[in-house]
Amino acid sequence: MKKRPFTLAATAFHTPERGILEVLEKHLFSIDAEGRIADILSPADDGYEQKKEAARAERTLVELAAGQFLLPGLIDLHIHAPQWPQMGKALDVPLEVWLQKYTFPLEAKYADLDFARTVYADLVDGLIANGTTTALYFATIHGPASLALAEICLAKGQRALIGKVVMDDPVQCPDFYRDADATTAIKETEQFIEAVRALAPGKRPLVQPVITPRFIPSCTDEALKGLSHLAARYDCHVQTHCSESDWAKTFVEDRFGQSDAASLDGFGLLTRRTILAHSNFIDEEDMNLIAARGAGIAHCPLSNAYFANAAFPLRAALDRHMHVGLGTDISGGYSPSLFDGCRHALSTSRMLQSGVHAHLPPQERGLPGAPINHCEAFWLATAGGAQALDLPTGSFRRGLEFDALLLDTRVAHSDIHIYDGYDTPEDVFQKIVLNATHGNIAKVWVSGREILKGIEPR
Amino acid sequence: MKKRPFTLAATAFHTPERGILEVLEKHLFSIDAEGRIADILSPADDGYEQKKEAARAERTLVELAAGQFLLPGLIDLHIHAPQWPQMGKALDVPLEVWLQKYTFPLEAKYADLDFARTVYADLVDGLIANGTTTALYFATIHGPASLALAEICLAKGQRALIGKVVMDDPVQCPDFYRDADATTAIKETEQFIEAVRALAPGKRPLVQPVITPRFIPSCTDEALKGLSHLAARYDCHVQTHCSESDWAKTFVEDRFGQSDAASLDGFGLLTRRTILAHSNFIDEEDMNLIAARGAGIAHCPLSNAYFANAAFPLRAALDRHMHVGLGTDISGGYSPSLFDGCRHALSTSRMLQSGVHAHLPPQERGLPGAPINHCEAFWLATAGGAQALDLPTGSFRRGLEFDALLLDTRVAHSDIHIYDGYDTPEDVFQKIVLNATHGNIAKVWVSGREILKGIEPR
Repeated sequence: MKKRPFTLAATAFHTPERGILEVLEKHLFSIDAEGRIADILSPADDGYEQKKEAARAERTLVELAAGQFLLPGLIDLHIHAPQWPQMGKALDVPLEVWLQKYTFPLEAKYADLDFARTVYADLVDGLIANGTTTALYFATIHGPASLALAEICLAKGQRALIGKVVMDDPVQCPDFYRDADATTAIKETEQFIEAVRALAPGKRPLVQPVITPRFIPSCTDEALKGLSHLAARYDCHVQTHCSESDWAKTFVEDRFGQSDAASLDGFGLLTRRTILAHSNFIDEEDMNLIAARGAGIAHCPLSNAYFANAAFPLRAALDRHMHVGLGTDISGGYSPSLFDGCRHALSTSRMLQSGVHAHLPPQERGLPGAPINHCEAFWLATAGGAQALDLPTGSFRRGLEFDALLLDTRVAHSDIHIYDGYDTPEDVFQKIVLNATHGNIAKVWVSGREILKGIEPR
Repeated sequence: MKKRPFTLAATAFHTPERGILEVLEKHLFSIDAEGRIADILSPADDGYEQKKEAARAERTLVELAAGQFLLPGLIDLHIHAPQWPQMGKALDVPLEVWLQKYTFPLEAKYADLDFARTVYADLVDGLIANGTTTALYFATIHGPASLALAEICLAKGQRALIGKVVMDDPVQCPDFYRDADATTAIKETEQFIEAVRALAPGKRPLVQPVITPRFIPSCTDEALKGLSHLAARYDCHVQTHCSESDWAKTFVEDRFGQSDAASLDGFGLLTRRTILAHSNFIDEEDMNLIAARGAGIAHCPLSNAYFANAAFPLRAALDRHMHVGLGTDISGGYSPSLFDGCRHALSTSRMLQSGVHAHLPPQERGLPGAPINHCEAFWLATAGGAQALDLPTGSFRRGLEFDALLLDTRVAHSDIHIYDGYDTPEDVFQKIVLNATHGNIAKVWVSGREILKGIEPR
């Protein structure tokens, strides 16, 4: 789909390299008819004024006002789409109750396609309004409802990677909500892959299918093998949960005599296109294996506080240059905002460093090593997520997809208070990362298309 | 000041007892000319319809729409008013840099009364907009600027307890920012107390003075003694930091051969009207002492993640029925929202329970005992804070001050998604606690006065 080229005059913040903030003050961003960044000019570059004047004359100039900033779109590496109605609910009950009484019955309702369409439309609107330009979704076991999610993302313009969930083990999965058997699960996954690829063909599809075994405990060996064949045949992304909790870690070790990561690798499910949610209990050997395969990790600090029994060793993963991004993990996590994700990644890394138990002496309480900072957190939510998914987006560079958001610090409901002459641009960025909410997001673009409207070109 | 009585027709949520949610569906709340709750009627009570009709006829009925709810106002038990411009900034530097390069130079600027007035007006507006109806403020060492904060709170209608900070120890405090000496600090504190009481006289003053030694390490013995005499003579609230970090705990033990709490008690500074910020490193004996004195604790989970070296043992404190509330601790904490405070109290309690270090076996990693739930968190932010301050507010009961907020779940920027027929009122309350932001707060009342306007009476 051809779009109308346009030029943005904006001060942008981005973190193209891990932990490094670049402030692009009053730059011109030219977006081409394919929705890619054709050019970026700084005020010191030749032709800056001419280009700006020309765009203004053509009425294709979007000029940001004081207090407005351009940021890369946010990337959610782990979210359960069907759990959207449950967001912020039932987090006061034990995991077993959460799963059996709330989550599985809710996911089972997506057999009803009308219900699915209603919720998924609300979901995608809600995420876009929070600045999520790319989402890696777990859907449900239902092919038609999962395809409806793909259609909705496409229609609303959100970049999405979507998996029909596979869970076929009758011992671990409830009767009312599981695949009939491994053969059916594999066949329906293949149909889903083909249907999504038919929906969004071409070399740069906005929506892609993902092979999605829920996690090893919910799948038979036969299902895991069959999905691995599909992954190879279709060169597809793969997503699953990995070593989230003590229980999950121990279950896989008992079943296969090796770790979750090693077991997935044994099935051929650990590839450059694999995203492992959580991975809190991976050890050094697992880290080496995951890094060697080029697989990515979706760090979900908020849901981990509730259900994971421990924090993900984020600093260690970053220091190894592993592929890591952030997931909201709705509804194990209650917040749809990846700004919240950044903030929880930050506070969790602090608590991991210092420890939490005051009765222990400091040297036994904490884990040595620096916590992450806000630039690293924002990298995780943008360029890090894009790297993990191998997508050409996540920062502002010539040739990348223009996935971005306009953040307005001066809206009525803003908690970002900037004091001129006191705050540097670097301070402004930190204030945005730490206090931006839904209400600060005035506009969102994906692949150059404006999918949430705020201000008009001037 | 007499106000116009009015009647609210609303579904209200409150937690008058710790951990117990009461849903008052479609109740009528009559607010008298003193700003107190004169009466609460349920639809089953005699006279409900007549009262509603009469209020409508008098045009004093405020009727909430679908999706709007009434909640008690939020109480911030620990906030550094002068650090408002620094909110969300400089949290990537070590504590020593944060203090010496950022915080003390910023606080020193409040010698400039114009600067103070500008920032404090922005601060009080920002907190009211976040639903904070009562705040216990640390100001600075400057009497005039601290008094300006009192005037601004009074003018804007926020309930406030304000302390001119005392820090007179030349070894611990920077030359550019400390009291001249103990005598001056005590004299200026006394003048401040009298000035605030002259500003807000009467039995139910909206604004009150608070005796505020910054913390033991920054005060000489002479200052601590003098402040304790003032506390007794004026029957004043007291606030200070207590056992926040390893360093602070050890410093006091080295200086006095006993804990922070015991030392404060020795000086006569631990009373029913004392609020201790943080208190992460208090032991059983300290807890018993604090509970016996009836002093309160301001739990600040967010800033603790950054600067405290450990988490406050909240469950243990609640199980002893200690007086505990929540503080934002701006700008050690970056969020002005006590809803965020609730959320950080929740996730911290989870992480304290399960532990954070995945390499430890589960039995060594965590601390046994239940985490807190969202009803307890909301109690901390409302009735718990009121109890700690000994103020007649924090829930909806006849005779209490009407400090409340109108929470609108259906505003454009809401992350609270309610599904009719799927969410119970209890679910709605949990969704509010976990996802309410600034943008959801449509109206705020303190002592019956509407201090943030949204909808009009219909």
